Amino acid sequence: MPYPMEGLPRRVTVYEVGPRDGLQNEAAIVPVEVKAEFIDRLADAGHTVIEATSFVHPRWVPQLADAGELLTRLDRRPGVRYPVLVPNERGLDRALEHGVTEIAVFASATETFAAKNLNRTLDSQFEMFEPVVSRALQHGVQVRAYVSMCFGDPWEGPTPIEQVVAVGERLLGLGCHELSLGDTIGVGTPGHVTALIEAFGSPERLAVHFHDTYGQALGNTLAALRAGVTTVDASTGGIGGCPYAESATGNLATEDLVWMLEGLGIETGLDLDKLVSTSTWLADRLGRPSPSRVVQALAKG
Amino acid sequence: MPYPMEGLPRRVTVYEVGPRDGLQNEAAIVPVEVKAEFIDRLADAGHTVIEATSFVHPRWVPQLADAGELLTRLDRRPGVRYPVLVPNERGLDRALEHGVTEIAVFASATETFAAKNLNRTLDSQFEMFEPVVSRALQHGVQVRAYVSMCFGDPWEGPTPIEQVVAVGERLLGLGCHELSLGDTIGVGTPGHVTALIEAFGSPERLAVHFHDTYGQALGNTLAALRAGVTTVDASTGGIGGCPYAESATGNLATEDLVWMLEGLGIETGLDLDKLVSTSTWLADRLGRPSPSRVVQALAKG
Repeated sequence: MPYPMEGLPRRVTVYEVGPRDGLQNEAAIVPVEVKAEFIDRLADAGHTVIEATSFVHPRWVPQLADAGELLTRLDRRPGVRYPVLVPNERGLDRALEHGVTEIAVFASATETFAAKNLNRTLDSQFEMFEPVVSRALQHGVQVRAYVSMCFGDPWEGPTPIEQVVAVGERLLGLGCHELSLGDTIGVGTPGHVTALIEAFGSPERLAVHFHDTYGQALGNTLAALRAGVTTVDASTGGIGGCPYAESATGNLATEDLVWMLEGLGIETGLDLDKLVSTSTWLADRLGRPSPSRVVQALAKG
Repeated sequence: MPYPMEGLPRRVTVYEVGPRDGLQNEAAIVPVEVKAEFIDRLADAGHTVIEATSFVHPRWVPQLADAGELLTRLDRRPGVRYPVLVPNERGLDRALEHGVTEIAVFASATETFAAKNLNRTLDSQFEMFEPVVSRALQHGVQVRAYVSMCFGDPWEGPTPIEQVVAVGERLLGLGCHELSLGDTIGVGTPGHVTALIEAFGSPERLAVHFHDTYGQALGNTLAALRAGVTTVDASTGGIGGCPYAESATGNLATEDLVWMLEGLGIETGLDLDKLVSTSTWLADRLGRPSPSRVVQALAKG
């Protein structure tokens, strides 16, 4: 029986990042046919947005070196979007060759992470995104923008809210249709989430991407929903983020999110049983148990 | 830097259940001198309420068979309360012999759990509590009442809110100063929490006790704080609850709670670094890593 809560949306879109953000951070390299089946199972469970893979150079992310082959194999269903991460123009070319209709770019909210992850300054990273976004739009391809380190980073501490808003607004200004505000190291708390979303003026084009490193992801999601956000990133079974620590998790687990949303009577279109069985199936292939609490609880029973 | 959130209390009392609810559910039997040091470290970290042990029969809970000896050894500090769980009059006698000034009784919100855990009906359980509470009050001993299975139980499904309120109000009517509403199997979601607390009319004598079995404990805590609750039960390092599953947790971890409260600028009087080092110290003695996300994240760094 659902128990709705005042001030929350009636429907939430879960943006599934498992095949890309999850698998790119797993130690195991998963065979392409397993990836294709994984994505197919996710669509079967009701997902309408599944970030499929990334055209980042295989030198950096060998786990996703099969991006082209995966897209060729993929059984694309009507009504399901399969965005692909694209780091630069070369990546965009490859995405276009493979008939991709939605891409995502990856920006930093902090100077240090821009330097370390993108080899750019906070300011000059936009020179990299500008041609990617404008050429994508010319081809009718929608662009989502990730902003990482929105709540803090390991070098600079808490990220100033106005700095995140400035980065985000430049990305929206380029023509991105959605901003995913990432708590990459999982340090945020609910009041910080509310303050950041309110600072954007409108939650309309915002999504949230929480990591569970400090156990805060679901509480933060609740705060984001109250602030009007209706798109929440999550990863099947909580895969990715922190592959080397046995029981640590990175990404918010889709199942833990869906448990909360179902309890609140918020529609997602997702079938929790199918999600759990997909996570259990995938865990067997990854050779480690799912870090999702819901998967652990339901897989036992 | 804290980011406060509208409608939350300025100060929260963390009711620490680790030494009792945590250790009674651990497979390991911890030596009494380790327990005494554990409790001392908790007081040192700023705790003002530490549930120390239980006078339940050692046949049922061998882990706490040393309750009397522990209380004798305990260095009770001024300003710190050390409540003890008491199941019946025999337990109360032993608690009084050991100079206990605060006890807790353990009730069920559902018929099936009353039968299985207390060997009583939902209605007849009060015959057991009545003499315990009235004699305790005659001795100037305060009584907290736990109500378990407030959100659902494994046999009956969701627990009707009016049934929880009826049980809770009878316990308050006996003279209990505080009701701890327990989500023993961890199935609750935030709207359910709000509805239950509101059904009580006033949150004043309510505490909440969440389990993280489905990852919902912190989101539910946020809902409880919004509904006016200012006492939250938690267990150091998340110990207890589910000792036989490697990475599953039962009780909400004190550190994960304190991370959220600190981020929200809510005072607790607790020193997070000392809590984490206590959990790390205890994990060594229990021979398994702490399931707390915050402990895992901070102990690495």
